[in-house]
Amino acid sequence: MKKLILFVACVVALSLDALAQTAGVPATTNIPGQKYPQLLPDNRVAFRVKAPDAQKVQMDLGKKYDMVKDTSGFWTVTTEPIPEGFHYYSLVVDGVPLCDPSSQTFYGMGRMASGIDIPDKDMDYYQPKNVPHGQVRSVNYYSDITKAWRRANVYTPPGYDDNSKKRYPVLYLQHGAGEDETGWPNQGKMDFILDNLIAEGKAMPMIVVMERGYATDPTKPVSTTGGGPGNMTSNVFPEVLVKEVIPMIDKTFRTLADRDNRAMAGLSMGGFQTFQTTMTNLDKFAYIGGFSGAGRLQPGSDIKQLYDGAWADPAAFNKKIKVVYMSIGTKEPERMYTGVKGFHEALEKAGIKHVYYESPGTSHEWQTWRRSLKQYAGLIFKN
Amino acid sequence: MKKLILFVACVVALSLDALAQTAGVPATTNIPGQKYPQLLPDNRVAFRVKAPDAQKVQMDLGKKYDMVKDTSGFWTVTTEPIPEGFHYYSLVVDGVPLCDPSSQTFYGMGRMASGIDIPDKDMDYYQPKNVPHGQVRSVNYYSDITKAWRRANVYTPPGYDDNSKKRYPVLYLQHGAGEDETGWPNQGKMDFILDNLIAEGKAMPMIVVMERGYATDPTKPVSTTGGGPGNMTSNVFPEVLVKEVIPMIDKTFRTLADRDNRAMAGLSMGGFQTFQTTMTNLDKFAYIGGFSGAGRLQPGSDIKQLYDGAWADPAAFNKKIKVVYMSIGTKEPERMYTGVKGFHEALEKAGIKHVYYESPGTSHEWQTWRRSLKQYAGLIFKN
Repeated sequence: MKKLILFVACVVALSLDALAQTAGVPATTNIPGQKYPQLLPDNRVAFRVKAPDAQKVQMDLGKKYDMVKDTSGFWTVTTEPIPEGFHYYSLVVDGVPLCDPSSQTFYGMGRMASGIDIPDKDMDYYQPKNVPHGQVRSVNYYSDITKAWRRANVYTPPGYDDNSKKRYPVLYLQHGAGEDETGWPNQGKMDFILDNLIAEGKAMPMIVVMERGYATDPTKPVSTTGGGPGNMTSNVFPEVLVKEVIPMIDKTFRTLADRDNRAMAGLSMGGFQTFQTTMTNLDKFAYIGGFSGAGRLQPGSDIKQLYDGAWADPAAFNKKIKVVYMSIGTKEPERMYTGVKGFHEALEKAGIKHVYYESPGTSHEWQTWRRSLKQYAGLIFKN
Repeated sequence: MKKLILFVACVVALSLDALAQTAGVPATTNIPGQKYPQLLPDNRVAFRVKAPDAQKVQMDLGKKYDMVKDTSGFWTVTTEPIPEGFHYYSLVVDGVPLCDPSSQTFYGMGRMASGIDIPDKDMDYYQPKNVPHGQVRSVNYYSDITKAWRRANVYTPPGYDDNSKKRYPVLYLQHGAGEDETGWPNQGKMDFILDNLIAEGKAMPMIVVMERGYATDPTKPVSTTGGGPGNMTSNVFPEVLVKEVIPMIDKTFRTLADRDNRAMAGLSMGGFQTFQTTMTNLDKFAYIGGFSGAGRLQPGSDIKQLYDGAWADPAAFNKKIKVVYMSIGTKEPERMYTGVKGFHEALEKAGIKHVYYESPGTSHEWQTWRRSLKQYAGLIFKN
């Protein structure tokens, strides 16, 4: 009897071990046909790269993992369990951070970067489903302020083409520093999030405009602040959005072109830009959202003095603005967490009505922002 | 007097030298804000990469250029004059071909690859201009044949949204092996090409559908031929296009859904797929285009036996099909050049009406295909 138990125990142990060896599946962010990076059941990731002549190869996912070379010139490493959601990462070959040729690339970190999407128990809301689908359209237009051609990505909701009379509210949705107008459709999966929310009746059908958050007026000196890659700045972005993008969108699409049907939100730098833009244009926006980025509050300063005193009269502001939304991931860097939370507390203290959300277990990354969009899209255009 | 002439000559020489040093401009394919790769007036390109610890760094543009490291850890090289148009290239770090972090990446070569676009004297036709612009829309749909979600990119012409009654002819336009549905909008600049042709009245307003040329029926054995990256094949692509994509497009967009208003074209593998699809579905297509890829003709075989004898009766075929178009670049690899030219000669010999174009000085690259699209789009839907 003891022998039998021991035998069964061994078989089970061997099976589990075999399972662990074989249960890896290619990540959804892999180049089609690539077997690696490979997701293991416990969210560890196995990477494999051919580099026979390299001296040192690492994978950098925030933490750097040294890879080990086998006799056939392949370098491999299996990481610790990786947090759920989308992460930028780099293949580091002899000290140079580069893209992993096995993965798709995404514009982030101020360059094209490799990305990997770790399944989330709660990932259902950003999967493609058998529901009516909207379209993401690239729209080219010339900007007189920046003296350059610009591109916006515009989500039109399911059924937009079916009823040529129906008009829709518009959400202006911004990316973060080092990203661009491709961030929300590619990394954020905003189209599937909206398709699913609309199908479930949890969000109003809406147009979503994703712009490039960098705009430089060639006649003005280039600011060195404001985020953005290279020598680009966001200094005139609010002006471009309000004076050029909004009129272009209202002319090109069947919009409801009044403030009650216009929202803005953004992540990180885009959150700061959202407050910067909306709080100085309260006649144009009725909904304000900041994901891992809100207003800037200097220590000791009073929010009632910010934005030309727009918060000096909380009752008037609460009546005028229908939703103010702020979010932050519980695992974001301390500086960001305390910054957003501090701003939330200051608004609360001042009696400014707003929704505040902490995304459990997520960092300054897209999973925080996917969850935030899911919530924010469900709050706007409903009153 | 001699002294003066000598003095002037020296000043001129020095000025020209200074000009040569300073005349470089960042490539349009650079990551915004990146100064390198830099285009020099004679189409040489200066590359610069920081890799202090690398042993050997090269730039591979078909020809490999060894880079030289300076004391600050930057590797630099200036190439020979590069042919006009778009080229994929690789940064090779200690033997590993990777993406240059200074450039945008494009899906080609079966992976994300760096790209550089060398100005062409004749590049005006693919530049954004102050004309009405179409939109490129991403359309998600589920394929019952492949049992997977697929994405098509669909160009709608300028004014599509302005008149909800007007219907348009449709061009199905395919990429080459190792590329995907993003190739024509990103590398090919098809939206600007069509916008400009339509504005000049040189092409009819049309819808252009760009599909993913890989389709595998999970219930069928995977073919190892047919092109495509990794373990994907194009074996059921024609079936997916005809049975699923065309009905989905005719349902989703305001199309003229008859054969007289349906064209197909493709480059390289996409050209073979175009002949494979149209020649076996002559009741569904009236226009056929192959850019650097046409039908497959085995030595000694007779085109009148190809495609179930569709060319056995040239008069009947010439009456039925309105345009057959084939093109090849004069600098393409011998095998490709003779393949397409040989097919053209066989069609001519058989009395099959067609247009044959040789793109001067271009290789098996996007400049050949941009020129081909410009010509083909001007020929179709006009009779």
